[in-house]
Amino acid sequence: MQEAAGRALSEHRGEQWLRSVRAVREERYDILCRPGLLSRDDETLVSLLRTDAPALVVMTPSTDRLYGKALRHSLAAHGPGADLSFMILACSEADKMTEQVLAVCRRAVEARLARRSQIVCVGGGVALDICGLAATLFRRGICQIRVPTTLIGMIDAGIGVKNGVNFDGSKSLLGSFSACEACLIDPSFLDTLPRRHLQCGLAESAKIATVCSPELFDLLDMHADGLLGPICGTLLGQTHDLIRLSIEGTLSELSLNLFERRDLFPNTYARKLDFGHTFSPYLEAASGHILLHGEAVAIDMAVSVELAYRLGVLDRATRTRVLDLIYRLGLPIHWPELRPEALRASLPSVVRHRDGALNLVLPSGIGTATFLKDLRELSLNLLTEVVQDLAEWPAKKGALDNARARR
Amino acid sequence: MQEAAGRALSEHRGEQWLRSVRAVREERYDILCRPGLLSRDDETLVSLLRTDAPALVVMTPSTDRLYGKALRHSLAAHGPGADLSFMILACSEADKMTEQVLAVCRRAVEARLARRSQIVCVGGGVALDICGLAATLFRRGICQIRVPTTLIGMIDAGIGVKNGVNFDGSKSLLGSFSACEACLIDPSFLDTLPRRHLQCGLAESAKIATVCSPELFDLLDMHADGLLGPICGTLLGQTHDLIRLSIEGTLSELSLNLFERRDLFPNTYARKLDFGHTFSPYLEAASGHILLHGEAVAIDMAVSVELAYRLGVLDRATRTRVLDLIYRLGLPIHWPELRPEALRASLPSVVRHRDGALNLVLPSGIGTATFLKDLRELSLNLLTEVVQDLAEWPAKKGALDNARARR
Repeated sequence: MQEAAGRALSEHRGEQWLRSVRAVREERYDILCRPGLLSRDDETLVSLLRTDAPALVVMTPSTDRLYGKALRHSLAAHGPGADLSFMILACSEADKMTEQVLAVCRRAVEARLARRSQIVCVGGGVALDICGLAATLFRRGICQIRVPTTLIGMIDAGIGVKNGVNFDGSKSLLGSFSACEACLIDPSFLDTLPRRHLQCGLAESAKIATVCSPELFDLLDMHADGLLGPICGTLLGQTHDLIRLSIEGTLSELSLNLFERRDLFPNTYARKLDFGHTFSPYLEAASGHILLHGEAVAIDMAVSVELAYRLGVLDRATRTRVLDLIYRLGLPIHWPELRPEALRASLPSVVRHRDGALNLVLPSGIGTATFLKDLRELSLNLLTEVVQDLAEWPAKKGALDNARARR
Repeated sequence: MQEAAGRALSEHRGEQWLRSVRAVREERYDILCRPGLLSRDDETLVSLLRTDAPALVVMTPSTDRLYGKALRHSLAAHGPGADLSFMILACSEADKMTEQVLAVCRRAVEARLARRSQIVCVGGGVALDICGLAATLFRRGICQIRVPTTLIGMIDAGIGVKNGVNFDGSKSLLGSFSACEACLIDPSFLDTLPRRHLQCGLAESAKIATVCSPELFDLLDMHADGLLGPICGTLLGQTHDLIRLSIEGTLSELSLNLFERRDLFPNTYARKLDFGHTFSPYLEAASGHILLHGEAVAIDMAVSVELAYRLGVLDRATRTRVLDLIYRLGLPIHWPELRPEALRASLPSVVRHRDGALNLVLPSGIGTATFLKDLRELSLNLLTEVVQDLAEWPAKKGALDNARARR
């Protein structure tokens, strides 16, 4: 679509005047699922690379170890015309900082990236975040191609338009909204993903399932135990469906208001996809990032579901079904060191980030949710009770399993 | 306007699929001219500030010294409900770095800025650049209100959507496109602007005049000598006209393609407003920022005009008229330490920033220009001759003045 820009109004009143500038811009990107992306005969990635400008390929150390050789082979099919530089970026949630964004920018200078250059990031959500922000800032924005290698990257961090780094102790406080050129999904990367990271991805998938997609919830519920094994044979189809349904659920929510324009949408910060993301920033930070993002999200979901039940928003059977699913996916529903007072004290910062309201997502059924807007309605007593109850959940597991067997 | 986002295409081919995400976003901002902005009875600034979220007001040390008291008094009219924090940001072109952007972000954390908070920047182009980028990154974008206090800020840095900081020795290598909420113009700030900085603003004005606006060129030509005095009495009207015409010229060019979308406009990086901005990054850096931005722009314009004349693009009389104007505005047309070899060697970096072409702006008359696209057409010999010729220009000034007297 055309970008139209111009003068809406120009008024003269003596020496006072007003001039309005208006411009419309379109963002467009593709998410492509291509199993076998790094095989020698797959040309998807190569066909996206421009031949008239240098490109920078960023990998994490583990991506490089597992796939670096295959990636280089695949890109070599590109021919001698390609001007590719590589960077190995060691990164983790705990050190997802501006320093790393600047390190990528410095490498982009060395690689002589031009305005039409591309940064290709092959890695997990943290690397995608860092490279996304670097690509946004370098020459005021060059193209980025994302190749997520983790489940979180495929269904969450890689497919939206948000990036961010931690700053001054706050998670993702600095960042931008910026679309990639393309995001390439290859489920076979999950074959080498450590079990704990796979579980973290399943936490995000359970999030989407609970508030957006009964179909995905049923799929997770049916295959919860098998999904954690190696992705081969009969489970391959389920993994593909899980990824596709998770992406569809995420995009259907994101696309309502992709750039979070609060001037256009009064409920911009009441987002169902924030389920599991209200208490989790505190949990991640308080644990010194010993809890991974997905684990913190799992505990947050458990707390939210239990709150929804106690506040009369969610029925007992559905609450039990969600807690049970989190548990069966091997995810934590409590953290022994959680201090309810500190958790409650972390919430005003969430309110600031959500434009003045808490907007805690409370599931009201599978696929639906309401929002607890006012922080004052969340008493420390209630929170303390919920946290204590969840700590005792494992002890109740026997009864729970019996209940499931009867379903 | 509505933001519309959704699926353009969703195709299934076995386990391969493609999903396109598309979103349109509108940016809109106002430029308001309000003489007497800081007077106690002017409510323009106060009326723009939100009462439901804290705001951060950033001033440079000189702005604070000259206008801090008046600004605080003016804002005090806002009443006790306003939650305002202040920051004094010492900055210059030479240290316009990411560190300063992060310093503003750190102050924004201390000031507990929320998603709907505003950063008000009262200062020159450098401060506007730094605060603009900080506002873009903080919480992925909060509102910024710009109050430029320099002529460059009023007619250039403050009114577009670009911001940037220097990185790794390159000028404005990191930045973003991001619209402000409002830009408030008060010409009376120029009363306290040091003469050298006023001249730098006049260089940008001469740039706009030469390639976009014969009306502005005539105004500058007619009042060149008087514009450098204090803005009072009879020259007040001319100063207002100069600012208004400069802004109109800039916006008429910018609004053709506000966000520099090269995917939509093949000639995105052939911009008339880049007149004076091809050799100037080298000049600024090579002089260790002893040359101010506007001075480097003036020398660049002189070189470009002389090149245009020698390449047969511009007639002799117009070339002389432009050089004469630059000279009469008290601006340099050469820099004794300029080394043509080094100047030429700096150009491949400009080519990278302009998507593969040099796009040197060559005026072809007052208000029109062509572009020298191919760096290879700019020989070192020609450049050396032009630089030598301009060095001798002052010696020829007597003859020039006589020529002017005859016009």
